[in-house]
Amino acid sequence: MGSQITVLGAGSWGSTLANVLFENGHEVLIWTRDEKQKEEINTDHTNERYLPHFKFPTELRATTDLEKAVATADLLVFVIPTKGMRELAKRVNSLLNREVTVVHASKGLEENTYKRISTLLSEEISSEYLKGLVTLSGPSHAEEVIAKDLTTITAASSDKKAAELVQSVFINDYFRVYTNTDIIGVEIGAALKNIIALGAGVIAGLGYGDNAKAGLVTRGLAEISRLGVKLGADPLTFMGLSGVGDLIVTCTSPHSRNWRAGYQIGQGKDVSSVINGMGMVVEGVSTTKAAYELAQTYGIEMPITEAIYQVVYNKADVKHVILNLMQREGKAE
Amino acid sequence: MGSQITVLGAGSWGSTLANVLFENGHEVLIWTRDEKQKEEINTDHTNERYLPHFKFPTELRATTDLEKAVATADLLVFVIPTKGMRELAKRVNSLLNREVTVVHASKGLEENTYKRISTLLSEEISSEYLKGLVTLSGPSHAEEVIAKDLTTITAASSDKKAAELVQSVFINDYFRVYTNTDIIGVEIGAALKNIIALGAGVIAGLGYGDNAKAGLVTRGLAEISRLGVKLGADPLTFMGLSGVGDLIVTCTSPHSRNWRAGYQIGQGKDVSSVINGMGMVVEGVSTTKAAYELAQTYGIEMPITEAIYQVVYNKADVKHVILNLMQREGKAE
Repeated sequence: MGSQITVLGAGSWGSTLANVLFENGHEVLIWTRDEKQKEEINTDHTNERYLPHFKFPTELRATTDLEKAVATADLLVFVIPTKGMRELAKRVNSLLNREVTVVHASKGLEENTYKRISTLLSEEISSEYLKGLVTLSGPSHAEEVIAKDLTTITAASSDKKAAELVQSVFINDYFRVYTNTDIIGVEIGAALKNIIALGAGVIAGLGYGDNAKAGLVTRGLAEISRLGVKLGADPLTFMGLSGVGDLIVTCTSPHSRNWRAGYQIGQGKDVSSVINGMGMVVEGVSTTKAAYELAQTYGIEMPITEAIYQVVYNKADVKHVILNLMQREGKAE
Repeated sequence: MGSQITVLGAGSWGSTLANVLFENGHEVLIWTRDEKQKEEINTDHTNERYLPHFKFPTELRATTDLEKAVATADLLVFVIPTKGMRELAKRVNSLLNREVTVVHASKGLEENTYKRISTLLSEEISSEYLKGLVTLSGPSHAEEVIAKDLTTITAASSDKKAAELVQSVFINDYFRVYTNTDIIGVEIGAALKNIIALGAGVIAGLGYGDNAKAGLVTRGLAEISRLGVKLGADPLTFMGLSGVGDLIVTCTSPHSRNWRAGYQIGQGKDVSSVINGMGMVVEGVSTTKAAYELAQTYGIEMPITEAIYQVVYNKADVKHVILNLMQREGKAE
């Protein structure tokens, strides 16, 4: 009774979701651009760079053939960096010949257009093939999911039935999926939390403690919510798994790349060498620019985003910027 | 231009707030029931049990004379465990002879009545003397405030002017006070977060990871908010410093007594010996009972509160209860 599912992308999160789906009894195929990675998954059943020490079930296969990957899938799960999303969606669309449910589990806003990922997917995948469009998001370090540690996550779609389908496909004993119909709020929360994660890393790097971290995350949530509401989200969505939940896990755990990058910047390391030295995409950096520009466009007060923007893009002194941020005039919450 | 302020209670938080107020240039007196503690503060300028290694300014004095403590104060700050609050308020009221602003910085609900602290204070302090009633609450480990680490906190009152007065009295470079007019939401958030802190400790003690913690805190916030709204709070208050903020600091930091108690319970230690062995009041224990009873009364779904209640009051097996909690049927957020 399983579905045929293709996971597009074999980073930590894509590989982990593919494994969850396989364990749930679906026929799963992983697509990757990388010939060597495909070979490693199919031959050694490992993906050492992204999931060190993990061994896939031998039946879980990878391919670099996008046509094959798309041909028989009922469900396509996009899990690649935001940057390559539109181009991949275009290619997928040209290969589709039947209806699919499209899921994405990436976190960001498109460069230059600042669009949400589901928006660009709906622009590229023709509506005759698009059975439903769902995002999967929440507090979920891949390292813990692959170890079957308990995780809660949201499947969000404006189409409740599509969200419920995705919930039923992913849910199991250790991977608890809740549905949500506010996909705008869930995607905005998912994207923008990386800015706050950078900020939380920065203040930890500067030597501030737990009170300051909690204050920053809370004020960060308030500014994410302000922008989200302007873009059509329900403010209460930010109290959920893709808002508060993801902020907590990203801002209080050293697993997060964004937090680690922020930490090094807070310690005074050179911003561009930190970002280039992470070895994986630091989504928070481009999201900071997107959110900063959106805040300017809509006239939304986003002091934390602005502070991070000044540090990352304008070489502002990190100590000075954060001190200014923290000592703004006392006001109402 | 300082105010005359008496802080009632010389635990970690009372002592810390007294020190903040003193540094801000006010005339501050600490009241304590404990003759020995008074002597220690006045003679050695320390309070070793509650603020190890900290030295008060020599001019900061303590007294056990409540009449003296109340006589000349413009502002009274109650910082004692919830349990003794009503009796102390009665005594204070009998000694008052002029208008005062009353602040409290305690977190809990009254035993048996399940009333908020500001409610019981307004019942005991006669309205002719009560100039304003404000609560101070937020993510604020005393250990970090006393070290002048940056802290953000909320001064909440239904009377905006009173909240602003308290903001102006407490705010400084490292202690950032925001105002809020939803005192119901702020007090409910402050009290109930201790239940979730117990829960977060329990799941850590059982060996769950960061994803599970973030999930529990988020779902905990949702149930606090459900009860809060029923009791008259604005749901958005729980996204603020006394909701999300306090949850983050309490559930992700080993400074918290409630978290530590939960952790030991999760590790399988005997519940009553854990609670009795903490050396300070574990407010979350009585708050769990209060919230559980309120949830029953109002028909509010509070699965985390119920789970903790079963563990603490009904000797339910902690592993079993938490597994049940975590694996409830997939539903909407």
